[in-house]
Amino acid sequence: MARASVVTLITDFGWQDAYVGQLKGRLVQTCPQALPVDLSHDIPAWDIAAAGRVLAASWHFFPAATVHLAVVDPGVGSARRLVAASGQGHFFAAPDNGLLTQLLADGVLEAAHEILMPPGQHISPTFHGRDILAPAAGRLAAGARPGELGPALPLHSLIRLPAPSVSARNAAGITGTVLSIDRFGNVRTSFHPHRDRIDTSLLYSIVLCNIVVNLRVRCYSEAPKGAYCFLVDSDGYLEVAINQGNAAQNIPCKPGDPLHLQFKTRA
Amino acid sequence: MARASVVTLITDFGWQDAYVGQLKGRLVQTCPQALPVDLSHDIPAWDIAAAGRVLAASWHFFPAATVHLAVVDPGVGSARRLVAASGQGHFFAAPDNGLLTQLLADGVLEAAHEILMPPGQHISPTFHGRDILAPAAGRLAAGARPGELGPALPLHSLIRLPAPSVSARNAAGITGTVLSIDRFGNVRTSFHPHRDRIDTSLLYSIVLCNIVVNLRVRCYSEAPKGAYCFLVDSDGYLEVAINQGNAAQNIPCKPGDPLHLQFKTRA
Amino acid sequence: MARASVVTLITDFGWQDAYVGQLKGRLVQTCPQALPVDLSHDIPAWDIAAAGRVLAASWHFFPAATVHLAVVDPGVGSARRLVAASGQGHFFAAPDNGLLTQLLADGVLEAAHEILMPPGQHISPTFHGRDILAPAAGRLAAGARPGELGPALPLHSLIRLPAPSVSARNAAGITGTVLSIDRFGNVRTSFHPHRDRIDTSLLYSIVLCNIVVNLRVRCYSEAPKGAYCFLVDSDGYLEVAINQGNAAQNIPCKPGDPLHLQFKTRA
Repeated sequence: MARASVVTLITDFGWQDAYVGQLKGRLVQTCPQALPVDLSHDIPAWDIAAAGRVLAASWHFFPAATVHLAVVDPGVGSARRLVAASGQGHFFAAPDNGLLTQLLADGVLEAAHEILMPPGQHISPTFHGRDILAPAAGRLAAGARPGELGPALPLHSLIRLPAPSVSARNAAGITGTVLSIDRFGNVRTSFHPHRDRIDTSLLYSIVLCNIVVNLRVRCYSEAPKGAYCFLVDSDGYLEVAINQGNAAQNIPCKPGDPLHLQFKTRA
Repeated sequence: MARASVVTLITDFGWQDAYVGQLKGRLVQTCPQALPVDLSHDIPAWDIAAAGRVLAASWHFFPAATVHLAVVDPGVGSARRLVAASGQGHFFAAPDNGLLTQLLADGVLEAAHEILMPPGQHISPTFHGRDILAPAAGRLAAGARPGELGPALPLHSLIRLPAPSVSARNAAGITGTVLSIDRFGNVRTSFHPHRDRIDTSLLYSIVLCNIVVNLRVRCYSEAPKGAYCFLVDSDGYLEVAINQGNAAQNIPCKPGDPLHLQFKTRA
Repeated sequence: MARASVVTLITDFGWQDAYVGQLKGRLVQTCPQALPVDLSHDIPAWDIAAAGRVLAASWHFFPAATVHLAVVDPGVGSARRLVAASGQGHFFAAPDNGLLTQLLADGVLEAAHEILMPPGQHISPTFHGRDILAPAAGRLAAGARPGELGPALPLHSLIRLPAPSVSARNAAGITGTVLSIDRFGNVRTSFHPHRDRIDTSLLYSIVLCNIVVNLRVRCYSEAPKGAYCFLVDSDGYLEVAINQGNAAQNIPCKPGDPLHLQFKTRA
């Protein structure tokens, strides 16, 4: 069997309604051999940055020529542009609203084109994801070049979100924020040691809501069952967890809350 | 690669259990090239009308020859019939319990056949969706004609649900109901301007739980952030929303609640 | 079109995060013709036994040569083994932590091999499901034999969970437990009449939280609407239900709670 044309999906549509399914309909209508793969549909409503982080953390697990379609689109129907970008052998389709910020920062993108509205079709002014982006992703999955979708856009013209606030590092450490909380109650921080050049072996503790977590582990099971620990998670972020327990149910924190990294002092 | 055989799924099974997955197993067992696409599994339990609305709103986004399998089946195991219908180049498999009411009203269906139980197989009396409908949908996806599944049924013999109650239109307007609330908290009304021949440019307001919404927009972002508005949504229904906010958390309404359309008076 | 290579997925990852999607990425990276089918991602966190029950109840609905990948892995990163097993023409990949207990008890498995870590790749110590098991499942789906993944393991060396506690049957009946509660509020018991050799026609009642349920039916609609009943469910377990109602909202029970089967006394 020939290779399927994988199309990943990231949206804030949720699972309850038929929005995701209808979008997939337009996708397979345009590209019959497309294989849709859901990355997340539980992005918090209108949280462009969260969608961008999932995209940047996930695209590289897929085969070359995968099309990554991300739709968090509070400006749908307005004049904001839609963009088809490419880089590292992958394709990306999304609104030009900052969703590609992290990919741009990571140097993944090499070129971008605007996606023009196809003429003569019914386009819902509230669902360009289904009526414009999905057919565009389908065309890419079927082998079209991004340039067939519209004119080239310079990468520097794409909208970028402000970087998350991180304090300057001083003797006392660095202050960051809670990024997100996963299904297990693990608390992901805004620190990504590889990107942020943090040597985790020099980390002494993470302080979050007055709770000091200072057990550093490689994997959950290195901590005693029920104990707080911190580790680098499977997407490369620094995370606070409880082995076989729910950290977020025990630490009353939410995305955006401040947290503090403390480093070992050298004698 | 040849065209996949798309099979859409609408159920009230939810996502937590293995019911949907087992049904897909029987589907790919019968039709190895089937591509299952989830439309919704969060239909409220036993809500036949809600499943029928999702089906009627979604089938046309899929390519010709798609099989649409819808299973909301409170009468499973009883004498109610199972039906394979066809129309507009698509196929539909469902219990004959009113689920096809909206498709019939829309004139989509052209023919119907009863799906007979295949002899000599283990059939769970509580899961005909998995044990009879999924293999039938698989046979259709593999190219069987509906007539191979059982005898023809006249369309007029199919069960129809009563139409949702809508008051007669008078000088004061029309009274309808809340149909459903989506992931974003948008409140879908029972009014579908295209079907119901309502000229939305003549609409003055929608009144719901004593809240008067009178800002008409084409898309959410035309309203100020946080403001109530009404619009025609991506399935063609009249909807009450808040731009980047959750209308249903601010208007204490639920499906079935009455609401009122007021029209402009002409001088 | 050639047969797709079906790969079923059972995890405790939930749907909100990108964990399932990333795992599917590694799968289609390794086996481009793989068709992932979700069985459940809502296994309670770290509940190995629950995942094993879903697997044992579901594998046989899929075509021969299906690969079943199950990841509930509280010991990820530790020395616990990963295993590729085969039997009845199907393949199974999972941590060796007891997840295969029910399949072993059912006599499904015929052979097992350890899955060795592929050398020279980045492996997250917290996500072997994505970085080791998914590529291994992909290789099986692409036609590799389990023996290509690592050395043979005797079946008797695989970890087994203790059997759920069931009292000895005496004149008064048998005591078991609540296994799980499904989307409809149906209460699945730990009794599986076919496996446990229970003649349901001799059952008089199920007693659960002081509520005596003694209406035995074949399917929900045989009970009056709103009435308690018990029946053999679509996976073969004895279940307490309410026709078109939510038993678990009316009986304050939870998984693990005791329940009691009473048998008819013969004169």
